[in-house]
Amino acid sequence: MNQSVAELQQEVESALSELEFPQSPVRLYEPIRYMLGLGGKRMRPVLVLMAGQMFGRKPSDLMPAALAVEVFHNFTLLHDDIMDKAPLRRGNPTVHERWSSDIAILSGDAMFVKSVQLLMACKGENHAVAMEVFLQTALEVCEGQQYDMDFQTEEEVSIDRYLDMIRLKTAVLLGGSLAIGATLSGASKEAVNHLYDFGVNLGVAFQLQDDILDVYADQAKFGKQAGGDILANKKTFLLLTALSSATGHEASSLNHWLSQEEGSYDTGEKVQAVTQLYNTLGVREQALTKMEQLYSKALQDLNAVDIQAEKKLPLRELADFLMAREN
Amino acid sequence: MNQSVAELQQEVESALSELEFPQSPVRLYEPIRYMLGLGGKRMRPVLVLMAGQMFGRKPSDLMPAALAVEVFHNFTLLHDDIMDKAPLRRGNPTVHERWSSDIAILSGDAMFVKSVQLLMACKGENHAVAMEVFLQTALEVCEGQQYDMDFQTEEEVSIDRYLDMIRLKTAVLLGGSLAIGATLSGASKEAVNHLYDFGVNLGVAFQLQDDILDVYADQAKFGKQAGGDILANKKTFLLLTALSSATGHEASSLNHWLSQEEGSYDTGEKVQAVTQLYNTLGVREQALTKMEQLYSKALQDLNAVDIQAEKKLPLRELADFLMAREN
Repeated sequence: MNQSVAELQQEVESALSELEFPQSPVRLYEPIRYMLGLGGKRMRPVLVLMAGQMFGRKPSDLMPAALAVEVFHNFTLLHDDIMDKAPLRRGNPTVHERWSSDIAILSGDAMFVKSVQLLMACKGENHAVAMEVFLQTALEVCEGQQYDMDFQTEEEVSIDRYLDMIRLKTAVLLGGSLAIGATLSGASKEAVNHLYDFGVNLGVAFQLQDDILDVYADQAKFGKQAGGDILANKKTFLLLTALSSATGHEASSLNHWLSQEEGSYDTGEKVQAVTQLYNTLGVREQALTKMEQLYSKALQDLNAVDIQAEKKLPLRELADFLMAREN
Repeated sequence: MNQSVAELQQEVESALSELEFPQSPVRLYEPIRYMLGLGGKRMRPVLVLMAGQMFGRKPSDLMPAALAVEVFHNFTLLHDDIMDKAPLRRGNPTVHERWSSDIAILSGDAMFVKSVQLLMACKGENHAVAMEVFLQTALEVCEGQQYDMDFQTEEEVSIDRYLDMIRLKTAVLLGGSLAIGATLSGASKEAVNHLYDFGVNLGVAFQLQDDILDVYADQAKFGKQAGGDILANKKTFLLLTALSSATGHEASSLNHWLSQEEGSYDTGEKVQAVTQLYNTLGVREQALTKMEQLYSKALQDLNAVDIQAEKKLPLRELADFLMAREN
């Protein structure tokens, strides 16, 4: 009997808390313990374990690989937070705020070492292939972060480049987690590739949903201030779509709001005005269409995995659950 | 016929220049090419190859592992330069100066991924053990850098802790390079351990020599301004030894110079006064004694490697060469 997502999350959480780090140097290892203790959905390690269960592996067999992916993910968050000058992570001070940027750089580096050590320690089939997927994914995540930084200062960003950026920055690690779990469980190369594509397409769809929810979420249910992306002029799928389709009055109105200096306008007014422009331009519908296309591709990828349909059900349910956030 | 150090350096340089990185994102990969193109003695990859030759391996067989170590080393330099706010590296602007800290963080991360990829790509015996040595060494280098940062603000640093810091920060990678080369060449665990110890002891001795040369080098021959460490109040073996043995007038004079604010004194005067104190306290002799002890230990470690003496000659000659810098 396979374990449910909730059970797997719990197992990951408990294994994470048992991860041992040396006591000293305190300022190297304490930030790592802090970062890993901030919680989160642990979705990536759960995907490693779910792919494993699909091919008959017990979660405990693949736990070191699952932790490798989670430690790696947290390393990227730690370094991203420095670059984004983010003050908070899951409601707590970021490592660079609580300690310093130097400490955050170095403890991030040490987390990356630890993640490779964990993957090395995982017994499983086709170990070298799993490591290859892991490292290629790691490099692509760096590429995605670089494109994200590049886009902040670039005048024009095409929608295709934006989609490629979010694929690299966030989606490949979801696909990679599934591919690593399946590879270590002896799945065929073909099955691994389909699972990888499923994860990547689902990941991009999920990010588009994030873009949409940031503007259109029911605030009471979503628990976040609506319009954060609009206020930050963030080049999301919505803004890029609006910029590419607006003409005449709408184009000049949009550019007006984008060029206003922070503090010179009422934030509620800007969110309302830009949302209104999005509505007029049908931007939400275009984003939903793209998202649904990707989700449907993801489901086709999952269908293509050559294994009994029953074994694919948990991943199918997880995908449905992820895409059913309140909007 | 084994290749000489100079020949190996050349082979490493040429293999490094042939390393391929994607064209895009430019701001991720261009800093990596820049950093790897700044030159250097390439001592660590040469040690990988020399250990290989000792056990009958052609340099070309171990080149990916040699490059892994060099790329890793340059990644640590790149991140260290951010933390040290260093403007120059080998006479050229550092990556964080030429681009930005964010770019330096991220391209360093990508270099680290690349280094693990290179080691994974190296065919050789006992591959998993070599990877273990590499990762353990990587973690220790992070620890050494953290201790180095800690020491800058700590009031009292014991000489033993200083020696441990330089062991971690610089020496373990020399030992690790030899151990990786020997492991991949099928050397016995015992031989690998002796070679590792040889490299570590040599590395600490070399760092002590650096501390001594910074004060006592013949400037014309050494090509560096003497006394840089003194002006920076850097906690070197010399300063820590002086602090631990000075009493009365000498102690107060030393503390006087340490507490002066930058700009409030003549730099030549400070260097001369502190050097004079070192001379009076016999600090140079103590450092030389420690250095020679470590060097002699290193040679014993090399002797203990169970292989014909002739095969150990190149490493012996390299060690003599390294320790014979002009002072």
